[in-house]
Amino acid sequence: MIFRPLAIDTQTKARCGELQFANHCIPTPVFMPVGTQGTVKTLTPGHLKEANTRIILCNAYHLCLRPGEKIVRQLGGLHKFMGWDGAIITDSGGYQIFSLTGLTKVSDNGVEFQSPVDGTRLFITPERMMEIQNEIGADIIMPFDECAPYPCEQDRASVAVKRTLKWAERCLNAHRDKRQTLFGIVQGNVFRELRIECARRLVEMNFEGYSIGGLSVGEGSFLMNEVLDYTVDYLPDDKPRYLMGVGFPVDILNAVERGIDMFDCVIPTRNGRNGCAFTSTGKVKILNSQYKEDSAPLDEICGCYTCQNFSRAYLRHLFMANEILGLSLISLHNIFYFQDLMRQIRESIAKGEFKDFKADFLLKQSD
Amino acid sequence: MIFRPLAIDTQTKARCGELQFANHCIPTPVFMPVGTQGTVKTLTPGHLKEANTRIILCNAYHLCLRPGEKIVRQLGGLHKFMGWDGAIITDSGGYQIFSLTGLTKVSDNGVEFQSPVDGTRLFITPERMMEIQNEIGADIIMPFDECAPYPCEQDRASVAVKRTLKWAERCLNAHRDKRQTLFGIVQGNVFRELRIECARRLVEMNFEGYSIGGLSVGEGSFLMNEVLDYTVDYLPDDKPRYLMGVGFPVDILNAVERGIDMFDCVIPTRNGRNGCAFTSTGKVKILNSQYKEDSAPLDEICGCYTCQNFSRAYLRHLFMANEILGLSLISLHNIFYFQDLMRQIRESIAKGEFKDFKADFLLKQSD
Repeated sequence: MIFRPLAIDTQTKARCGELQFANHCIPTPVFMPVGTQGTVKTLTPGHLKEANTRIILCNAYHLCLRPGEKIVRQLGGLHKFMGWDGAIITDSGGYQIFSLTGLTKVSDNGVEFQSPVDGTRLFITPERMMEIQNEIGADIIMPFDECAPYPCEQDRASVAVKRTLKWAERCLNAHRDKRQTLFGIVQGNVFRELRIECARRLVEMNFEGYSIGGLSVGEGSFLMNEVLDYTVDYLPDDKPRYLMGVGFPVDILNAVERGIDMFDCVIPTRNGRNGCAFTSTGKVKILNSQYKEDSAPLDEICGCYTCQNFSRAYLRHLFMANEILGLSLISLHNIFYFQDLMRQIRESIAKGEFKDFKADFLLKQSD
Repeated sequence: MIFRPLAIDTQTKARCGELQFANHCIPTPVFMPVGTQGTVKTLTPGHLKEANTRIILCNAYHLCLRPGEKIVRQLGGLHKFMGWDGAIITDSGGYQIFSLTGLTKVSDNGVEFQSPVDGTRLFITPERMMEIQNEIGADIIMPFDECAPYPCEQDRASVAVKRTLKWAERCLNAHRDKRQTLFGIVQGNVFRELRIECARRLVEMNFEGYSIGGLSVGEGSFLMNEVLDYTVDYLPDDKPRYLMGVGFPVDILNAVERGIDMFDCVIPTRNGRNGCAFTSTGKVKILNSQYKEDSAPLDEICGCYTCQNFSRAYLRHLFMANEILGLSLISLHNIFYFQDLMRQIRESIAKGEFKDFKADFLLKQSD
């Protein structure tokens, strides 16, 4: 993987660039829609392309549970399996495994837990997680990490960081298919020294990119921004930085400002399925009765399929009538909106106007 | 509306032709996917076009309940409302109203019933139904009719036919917007003399097309074919004939053979959402474990988006994982399949080979 920074903002740490890997060349900062189970919910790959999506995130843990990584490999790997010729990153699913309720046993060796799909006991080690992700065949893969909950005592967070570092090393050693790019994941909760230690140690291991995990888990944007402020300084400039699971447009803007290049989040699709659309003037909650006879599109200045073809009144009707098309159309719009936001962010950085763009963007949001 | 028969089969009553109305010219026999509530379930208008759909059926009764015909009109009429520039036919929804459980009062004047959406008491007369359909603005509209249940005594069916005829006349008189084509609906259950009387009287009223209603309601294909055999003979050759709510491919073939030009049915979309795909070799029930690792498309010889991009194993995974994309992809395939069947039917009639095509088609179905 080659990361080529093309412009660096003079007033902030924001940067735009290009990420080259496999047969992909992806402009950054980039937003990656989430396709946990091998599908970005309600949307076809065609829809994703229309919404200017270049890379999506899937979840190795979920795909291992169902349909099983062996089936994905047999069917030609995840790209072919899901009919997506753009890039794919898989998260290991450590976060999901550590969030499971029930009998989960964590040791330095790995994690034993119960499959929520069929109840079988499973044991996942860092080596096994690399094997799973190698079989699935995404372009970028993540090591198995331990994500401590929030809030959490520093001692507990420290144990998770130590384990995450040991596992990162084991993942590096177990990583066979060099066509796949392996990132390191910085953990450490909201503790400065833990974050810095974790970042330093990972950088020594020399990963091809660095993820920042364990944020956006309830700590709030003030603490998240603080963690980003100091963590990014310990990551190399010539490698991409990926803030996992973030977020709302304002979170993305704050993180870009602090030097983040890659984002993934369920927000555009999950909110879309709940009838909440992001627009240039703020959120539109489509079930509100004010849209009952509203002939305007979700967003007057949006070029997406939904806004080019359908009124708020029609979308509201679809939601009122429990019609699935409504879920797809607002999800599609939201993905388009996020991708368009990223395009504007990149352009503003290239022009040296990121600060103004951000201020202007936030000003236009009515909510 | 102009109906131009282009070829008539020499061995059967099958015919292919063109239906010209508004700005549409639609080859027949034609299949019309069902978009009851102003959306063909799970599919975008773009998907419908991709699947070679030229005309869809919506339901005036459902649209009157929600969002209300006035809102549809305010939003520019149904085509604009749902972003569909193909043709639209609205059924009145008589069948749905007469199928309601609860306190429904039928008199010669009209039907009083309770809205299943909000519980209000509604009263619909033939005149009101024309007003509703005029507001909704489909290209082809249906009169308000009484559909007797099956099985049913001849006396009861006779009352329904008399009422249907009186209401047909009232609809003709109440029909204002001559840009909309009004059909007559032949009722009469499975009683030969009732069907013939109903057809004769409707033809005297000189409608622009004739629907055959009250079939495919449990009478079975033997009785349905029998009714079609004699009913079609009493309908004029220069007007289109529409068999309402039918059906499976074999039903369509049987009805085309008997001189039917137009069909609508929920089967391709409903079965699609249940994971049942129609293919050139019979049905594929995607949840069957035999498809777990099947890298083949639903149908090897199908050119639809789903078959061009996805394996049975992937589609099965989507259904197992409750992913909405699965519903859309199989619905899309099924609509494409039905439209392709209609194309083949039309071509076989034009070539004088309908009988052979039908025999060959049925032979290839493994189930």
